[in-house]
Amino acid sequence: MITSSSNPRVKQIVQWQNKAKERRSAGIFLAEGFKLFGEAPEEWIREVYISDGSWDKVSGIPGMREKLVRTGCETVSPELFPKMSDTQSPQGILCVLRRPQYSMEEMLSVPKPLFLVLENLQDPGNLGTIVRTGEGAGVTGIIMGAGTADIYNPKTIRATMGSVFRVPFVYTEDLCRAVAQLRENGVRVYAAHLQGERYYDSFSFREGTAFLIGNEGAGLSGELASQADSYLKIPMEGCVESLNAAVTASVLMYEVHRQRHCIC
Amino acid sequence: MITSSSNPRVKQIVQWQNKAKERRSAGIFLAEGFKLFGEAPEEWIREVYISDGSWDKVSGIPGMREKLVRTGCETVSPELFPKMSDTQSPQGILCVLRRPQYSMEEMLSVPKPLFLVLENLQDPGNLGTIVRTGEGAGVTGIIMGAGTADIYNPKTIRATMGSVFRVPFVYTEDLCRAVAQLRENGVRVYAAHLQGERYYDSFSFREGTAFLIGNEGAGLSGELASQADSYLKIPMEGCVESLNAAVTASVLMYEVHRQRHCIC
Repeated sequence: MITSSSNPRVKQIVQWQNKAKERRSAGIFLAEGFKLFGEAPEEWIREVYISDGSWDKVSGIPGMREKLVRTGCETVSPELFPKMSDTQSPQGILCVLRRPQYSMEEMLSVPKPLFLVLENLQDPGNLGTIVRTGEGAGVTGIIMGAGTADIYNPKTIRATMGSVFRVPFVYTEDLCRAVAQLRENGVRVYAAHLQGERYYDSFSFREGTAFLIGNEGAGLSGELASQADSYLKIPMEGCVESLNAAVTASVLMYEVHRQRHCIC
Repeated sequence: MITSSSNPRVKQIVQWQNKAKERRSAGIFLAEGFKLFGEAPEEWIREVYISDGSWDKVSGIPGMREKLVRTGCETVSPELFPKMSDTQSPQGILCVLRRPQYSMEEMLSVPKPLFLVLENLQDPGNLGTIVRTGEGAGVTGIIMGAGTADIYNPKTIRATMGSVFRVPFVYTEDLCRAVAQLRENGVRVYAAHLQGERYYDSFSFREGTAFLIGNEGAGLSGELASQADSYLKIPMEGCVESLNAAVTASVLMYEVHRQRHCIC
C-alpha cells in the first residue's frame, strides 16, 4: 500500500492533475470515480489507484472487482488518496489512461455523419456537456481548434460522464482547412451565428451535417463563419442575446436526431 | 468614496454575498457587472457600488452614466471593491436589488403557457442556464421546489445573463400541489423520465404545457412523477444514461417553440 506523498508515482499523478502540458507530453489523461473507471476501455488503462477505504464500494458494483483484477491496481492509504484526487469528495478510485487517436478520414467514412466544430470554446464543463450530449444525439465526431478547452481537463472528463471514451474527436491547428475537408466530402456546414438569416429548424439535416459553434462570449470568428455553406440561428424570445454554447449545440444536435428519426 | 472594509455597508454586502439566509431575510439579491446592472429594472435597484477604477468603462457604455445618475451609486476604492465581489475578475459594479414577487395565478393567466417544474435541481450554474434558455424559448414561468438551488445564488444570477429579471418564477413547499393546480388550469404535465414510454417529439405541445425536471443524479421522485399526465423521454444513442438537466430542459423547451412556430 502506498502511504507516502513522496512516492514517485503519487508525485507524478499530482503533477498530471495540475498540468495539462505534462499530461499531453506523457500522452495520458486521468479519470476518477467508479462510473468512469467502469466505462473506460480496458486497453486504454495504464494504471489504477484505489483508496484502501474504497474496497467495500468495489464489492457493491457488479464486475468491478473482476475489472480491477484484469487491469491491476495499487492501493493507496485513505489519508493519501485525496491528495492525488482532483475532486472535493473523491470516490476513491483514479485511473491513468492512454489518449485515443482518431482521424478525420475515419470519422468521414461514416455515412451521413454529424459533426460539431468547436472554435475557442473556453469552459471545460461546457465542453464535457457537449461531448455527453453529442453521444446521446448520435454525433459522429467533434472537431476542435487549438483554442478550445482541453478535453482531457479533469473537469471536462467528469462532465462527459464517460462519453469521452466513445465520442471520436480531433484537435486541429487549422479549423478552416478541416471545414474545407468536410465540405469536400459532401458534408453541409452550418455556422450557428446570431446573424443567421434562417432558423435552424427550416433546414434539412438528413444528409451529412456539421455545425460550427463559437466562443461563449465572442461567437464564431468571421474567418471560420465565412467557410460555412449557410448561417443558421436559434430563435430567441424576450431580450436573450445568445444561448449557452452547450445549449446551442444540444438543441441543434437533437434537431438533427429528430429529423433523422422522424417517421413524418 | 468608501475605502474601508469596516464600513458597515461593505460588511453588509460581504455578508450577503456569502449567506443565502441573510439575503433572504433582507428580501434582496446581488448582481454584478455592467450587463446585469444595465438590464436590471430600475424599480428593483436599491443600492449600487462602483469601483473608482471603473468610471472609464461607464463612459464607454451608452446609457450607463444616465442610469447611474437615476439610481444613485457609491464609489468604492479599487482596492476594496474585489473584497465585496463574488467574482475572480470583478467588473467593478455591483448592485443590491429587491426580490420580485410572482404568483401562480399571474403565470396561469397567460394563454397556452409553458412551465418548467424543477425538483431538487442542485447545480446553481445549471439553474441559471435553464432560466436563460427558458427566456429564449419563451417559457411562461419556472416553478421550483424548496430543494432546488437558490435562484439568487450569485453564480446562478451570473449564468442567467439577465434573464432572471424577466422570467417569472416561484418557489413552493409543495410541488405536487403546484402540479395539481397546473392540471386544474388545463396545462398538460409531462415528466421527463428515463422510464418514459414515448419520445418527446411524438407529443403535441401546442396547448398549455409543463415539464417536470428532476435532480441531476436521482431524477424525479416517484411521488412527483406520478402526478404527470404523461412520461416522456429524450432518445439517447450510445451508452448515455441521462442528459444534463439544463440540456434536457433546453431540448424540451425548444421543441415546444419549434412546434408552436412551425408553419408545417
